[in-house]
Amino acid sequence: MTYRIAVLPGDGIGPEVTREAVRVLEAVGAAAGIRFEFVEAPIGGAAVDATGDPFPPETEQACLAADAILLGAVGGPRWDREPVARRPESGLLRLRKGVGAYANLRPVRVHPALAGRGPLRPEVVGGGIDILIVRELTGGLYYGERGVQQEPFGERAYDTMVYTTPEIERVVRMAFQLARGRRRRVISVDKSNVLETSRLWRRVTEAVAEEFGDVELEHMLVDNAAMQLVRNPGRFDVLVTENTFGDILSDLGAALCGSLGLLPSASLGLPGRPPLFEPVHGSAPDIAGRGIANPLGAIASAAMMLRYAFGLEREARAVEEAVDDLLAAGPWTPDIAPPGAPVAGTEDVGRAVARR
Amino acid sequence: MTYRIAVLPGDGIGPEVTREAVRVLEAVGAAAGIRFEFVEAPIGGAAVDATGDPFPPETEQACLAADAILLGAVGGPRWDREPVARRPESGLLRLRKGVGAYANLRPVRVHPALAGRGPLRPEVVGGGIDILIVRELTGGLYYGERGVQQEPFGERAYDTMVYTTPEIERVVRMAFQLARGRRRRVISVDKSNVLETSRLWRRVTEAVAEEFGDVELEHMLVDNAAMQLVRNPGRFDVLVTENTFGDILSDLGAALCGSLGLLPSASLGLPGRPPLFEPVHGSAPDIAGRGIANPLGAIASAAMMLRYAFGLEREARAVEEAVDDLLAAGPWTPDIAPPGAPVAGTEDVGRAVARR
Ligand SMILES: CC(C)[C@H](C(=O)O)[C@@H](O)C(=O)O
Ligand SMILES: CC(C)[C@H](C(=O)O)[C@@H](O)C(=O)O
Repeated sequence: MTYRIAVLPGDGIGPEVTREAVRVLEAVGAAAGIRFEFVEAPIGGAAVDATGDPFPPETEQACLAADAILLGAVGGPRWDREPVARRPESGLLRLRKGVGAYANLRPVRVHPALAGRGPLRPEVVGGGIDILIVRELTGGLYYGERGVQQEPFGERAYDTMVYTTPEIERVVRMAFQLARGRRRRVISVDKSNVLETSRLWRRVTEAVAEEFGDVELEHMLVDNAAMQLVRNPGRFDVLVTENTFGDILSDLGAALCGSLGLLPSASLGLPGRPPLFEPVHGSAPDIAGRGIANPLGAIASAAMMLRYAFGLEREARAVEEAVDDLLAAGPWTPDIAPPGAPVAGTEDVGRAVARR
Repeated sequence: MTYRIAVLPGDGIGPEVTREAVRVLEAVGAAAGIRFEFVEAPIGGAAVDATGDPFPPETEQACLAADAILLGAVGGPRWDREPVARRPESGLLRLRKGVGAYANLRPVRVHPALAGRGPLRPEVVGGGIDILIVRELTGGLYYGERGVQQEPFGERAYDTMVYTTPEIERVVRMAFQLARGRRRRVISVDKSNVLETSRLWRRVTEAVAEEFGDVELEHMLVDNAAMQLVRNPGRFDVLVTENTFGDILSDLGAALCGSLGLLPSASLGLPGRPPLFEPVHGSAPDIAGRGIANPLGAIASAAMMLRYAFGLEREARAVEEAVDDLLAAGPWTPDIAPPGAPVAGTEDVGRAVARR
């Protein structure tokens, strides 16, 4: 069996962390007798520098020809003044849309080894945090019509939040399906007391819920959801929401954990299109190239790839357990090293996971 | 000197808590020789029940004829199935727009007496939390064109986020002015790597910043802001942002404090129009009518009224100090009573503040 993986290292610490994730996948392949074929292609600022385009046609082709995509991170201050079409983020948004990755899965788990390290008091964390955030990824304000005009009094800019019934249906249905493999509770987050798109979101969600009599549905307004995540994170199982709310709430969820550097994400979508896996952290230009970035988010994303792209549940678990072992026993990169413990580099950590 | 105050009790616990705020204002007036004239008018669900309109013309007139407006809270499950025009929230949005209240000020302070009660670990709170969130209140997704259409494949809904240069300028300028009375640091929150309105927001903010050489400006992306508020709230002084982001972040900020019931807000706007004061909490239908709601958010909002509407700084401070005393020594409503302490009702707390 051969799987083709498009590797898009991107910017900042992206290349360092994807290198370790590839190392781990190679170790898994060797142990399990599976062949992974890696095809590297540029994206983001690196692609702008090389080709003038943050998502060049050859990268798109490499992605569409792959069984799965592993992405590092994009962006950095160097490209902040570029016109929109040449910004790294535009490349990422085109990639997501291009492969139809409409559902972004972000598990928010407080690792037992790091339970005491997050910002919340232990009483608030209580029995632990284990949330699966499902963020709609190819609609809403990110892809609606937008523009800016000169007016007599200055400028006037607009963005449009658009959703259709099928766009909502498919991502909400995926959230319900995923809830079946968990605690069977879906919280759908919207702003239906103000937004027309949210009222449609709520109607469609209620219709989808009827297909899932065994899963409980609750609606929550987005402002209240931000509050509840901080006050009572234990009440969330699966949280599903639209693109912009999901961007904010998933980073808030990440903040509740000990280290952002640990969190993976998977973006699943249209049948026949390759799913996309990337760590939640950004390109961290301040520590790029120093060999100290935490590769565990990228490695955990590779584990999600094994599970969701290739159905290799056993291999996914093995990687996740290796990560858990490392969190407890080291080696640790500086962001998660316990006070006084020796710190290791990105590559040491990657090799240690691969060995296990 | 006579000041006219329009009192809009609204729904749920709104009437109970505004009653105590009025009691405190009357005590202040008696002590300081100022006459407050109160005119009560319906809004929200109560107004729908009475007149079919959540913001009836007589309420609008009472507001426009007043020097300041005190609002309780609006909304409740009873009106959730009403068509949009008859929903309590629509009344609130029309009130804000009607009086031109474009800047919503939400101080997020962890009261010394409750420092240990919030969800964050003491090391995270560190030297304390003292943030002034300035939320744009009459633009963006809340007021842009919206609609829903039938399509062959289902429905299609949209909302529009619109901002103009003057709309951004005036609220950002107010944030800078307020920063001068504080620690002189403004963090402007946007999503300029995706949204056209955010790119305009950033351009206008940089231009306004040039008028304030003595105030430091930092830009932050909204997802990162949600994260930083939880990980490092001490780094924020004044946070300014657009309407929807402000809705989410200000409730997140509120969650960082011990009790939502304590937080006030002021909505300031066009010259010659009455500013609006309301507690941050909602209508809390589950505890309405039981006399146990915490009136301190409404009372602290009345203190903001004394300061921002009437320039009565000394009187505002006196009320705020009375509130601080009560937090330390009681009486306490159930939401903030220390474990084992006797609990008091809404009216006991109102009378205790008024006495001081
Ligand atoms: C880089 C940016 C465009 C992106 C987003 O907003 O989706 C990022 O914040 C994320 O969450 O993956
Ligand atoms: C009730 C609702 C329309 C309102 C808002 O979103 O502005 C509320 O959440 C608030 O923050 O005052």
